[in-house]
Amino acid sequence: MEQLILHEDWISGNCYKIRLTAALLGLPIERRQYDITKGETRTPDFLANVNANGRIPVLQIGDRFLPESNAACWWLASGSPLIPQDRFDQADMLRWMFFEQYNHEPNVATLRFWKAHIGLDKLTDAQRALVPGKEVAGNAALALMDQHLTGRDFFVADGLSLADVALYAYTHVAEEGGFDLGAYPAISAWLARVAAQPGYVGLGD
Amino acid sequence: MEQLILHEDWISGNCYKIRLTAALLGLPIERRQYDITKGETRTPDFLANVNANGRIPVLQIGDRFLPESNAACWWLASGSPLIPQDRFDQADMLRWMFFEQYNHEPNVATLRFWKAHIGLDKLTDAQRALVPGKEVAGNAALALMDQHLTGRDFFVADGLSLADVALYAYTHVAEEGGFDLGAYPAISAWLARVAAQPGYVGLGD
Repeated sequence: MEQLILHEDWISGNCYKIRLTAALLGLPIERRQYDITKGETRTPDFLANVNANGRIPVLQIGDRFLPESNAACWWLASGSPLIPQDRFDQADMLRWMFFEQYNHEPNVATLRFWKAHIGLDKLTDAQRALVPGKEVAGNAALALMDQHLTGRDFFVADGLSLADVALYAYTHVAEEGGFDLGAYPAISAWLARVAAQPGYVGLGD
Repeated sequence: MEQLILHEDWISGNCYKIRLTAALLGLPIERRQYDITKGETRTPDFLANVNANGRIPVLQIGDRFLPESNAACWWLASGSPLIPQDRFDQADMLRWMFFEQYNHEPNVATLRFWKAHIGLDKLTDAQRALVPGKEVAGNAALALMDQHLTGRDFFVADGLSLADVALYAYTHVAEEGGFDLGAYPAISAWLARVAAQPGYVGLGD
């Protein structure tokens, strides 16, 4: 296999998804760290050679570059049991991965970043005005997940898939964003099931 | 094949993506209309039986329901030339589809909805405060697309894929959101290429 290099900031859940996918599959991956708070993903070199969108994570596969965390997880898991083969289940897995990027990450991950890493007192007025709406929308995403997981072990079909990996990344640190996971018992049980998987690594590992 | 029913609001680009995918593949699809401005996707019946997330589009496949526009397109196009078989190209297609939902739709589609369908004068103060940021972010997404399309016919590899379908839906009506497509010549040429595809249908068809 071509050499795999993850361009990342280890604190980011989006980057962690890729490390967790690689670990579950036993794939070695080299890591290159960037500090987004210092603009290290906005340099001319990064924009020209890694990602014109100025964002991490980017999975480098040989000399090719793949941005977007869930697309990188898809590449890694291609042909593995982390992607169901059944036509409906495969689309349903992507359904949860798109939900994650649209309904979950912009609320749960952004509030974690603002509260635990930037600090509420350092936000701009425009950012601070968004906090209440993101709290409501983040809890709505968590409530939908909890409802879906009630009576199920994993998000899709009967086993662990990339839908679980994608949603686990920011859900398991949602309390850093001020969310109360105690209110979501099915999520709490599912988090424990994911963390018990063979090959599992934590965000700080 | 099981009967396909699209739960939709025809004016929505996310719903149009699914109709366009079905049309390009020659798949018949029944349409059920909902008016989101009247709360028709938030009724107890809709939440219990169609989508607990209260959103459209939802693709109904027999008695199963698949939310998230790009996941529905994936189901429809499974095994067709609209999804490249090459491992990198397939992940790269998903990369642009995640980009669409994260960087493009929340800016380009939301401003179109607010300006052309709700009316700027009817927005809440909180919504109005978001307009300048969404204008900047929407133009950044369009600039990135234009840069990528310069020298290319389509987003991924050498042919039309779901990445083109997903990004076409709201880009071709971006001027309704106040974006000047004249500033993006590679996008304009690509829009014409997509519209010339056999089987193409327009948003209002």
